Amino acid sequence: MSDRKSTDATKRLILDRGVALFLKNGYHGTGLNDVLGAANVPKGSFYYYFASKEDFGVQAVEHYLAPFIKQLTQHLATPERDGLAAIENYFRALIEDLEAGDFTGGCLLGNLMGEIGDTSEAARAALKKAVDRYCDLLETGLARAQREGVARTDRSARTMADILTNAWQGALLRMKIERSSAPLYAFLGEILLGYCKR
Amino acid sequence: MSDRKSTDATKRLILDRGVALFLKNGYHGTGLNDVLGAANVPKGSFYYYFASKEDFGVQAVEHYLAPFIKQLTQHLATPERDGLAAIENYFRALIEDLEAGDFTGGCLLGNLMGEIGDTSEAARAALKKAVDRYCDLLETGLARAQREGVARTDRSARTMADILTNAWQGALLRMKIERSSAPLYAFLGEILLGYCKR
Repeated sequence: MSDRKSTDATKRLILDRGVALFLKNGYHGTGLNDVLGAANVPKGSFYYYFASKEDFGVQAVEHYLAPFIKQLTQHLATPERDGLAAIENYFRALIEDLEAGDFTGGCLLGNLMGEIGDTSEAARAALKKAVDRYCDLLETGLARAQREGVARTDRSARTMADILTNAWQGALLRMKIERSSAPLYAFLGEILLGYCKR
Repeated sequence: MSDRKSTDATKRLILDRGVALFLKNGYHGTGLNDVLGAANVPKGSFYYYFASKEDFGVQAVEHYLAPFIKQLTQHLATPERDGLAAIENYFRALIEDLEAGDFTGGCLLGNLMGEIGDTSEAARAALKKAVDRYCDLLETGLARAQREGVARTDRSARTMADILTNAWQGALLRMKIERSSAPLYAFLGEILLGYCKR
């Protein structure tokens, strides 16, 4: 794919609207016509950028993940904070966004893992790649926290990164049915600061 | 609802087939005709038992949960085991079932929390009731484990039950995209035996 295509504003618009629809109605509950209508583009425009709905789902996963990777990277780059505090601040900011959004949507990765993670091989591969990338970044922060003496060292940074990632996804599911950030703060206190902290 | 209706074999058959379809294709990906075809019943039979697809979803959640409540209750009733060992054995048995099923499906509660937990109020209420009931039972086991001196006592049994429930859901999501029980065993070692154990 050329740089021109990958940075195209129309493509980004379609992906933005698609992500919002997938978050609200799930993968199967989102029809191609819903996406076309929300982005106000003809079908031909969609198929110029995406080979199929499945390909669109794959690219939506990457598109959805990008700002989270950026935010976590920025938090980890703040020099005055230790690695654990950076991760804590990242999750606190996410919780505030989820509270502002009235606990709807959750995480597109988690929702799609549940809905199509075991039925579409393309989706599974895209979700695994996204989650691995996220875990890699958390691992970097946790390894720094270990070197700084603030994270426990009787577990590998990778083990903790995987536990953080998975427990956060579960907390997000619970948030949706509780309509409350209590499960998210429990994650913060019990898993990040309880389980990971030295 | 009369006892006759609630124990009706046809109703159970429709629910069994519906649960299997929801686990495979999600809520939106499962059409009424798919359910009718899988159960080999006419539409009138479905509407004799269920007011709508949404009502069917609500009853499918209760139907799905029942055997898990029964299994966990049985594990907790085994007198020679402490509460934590009973919970561990319960989760080990679940992991073996998931391995035998090639890591597909996951948990219907988690999948539906992600897909429709924030869009259908009836589904949200049914999922919350089911998850609360499950947490109550885990709390009972953890409180016993605390009295037996095998679970930590600086956290309430409820806090630990909630963390266990949510972290398990997240581990199940990860299992689906990894096609591996590694996230489930990590949950067992790091959360149940790491975080909860005294």
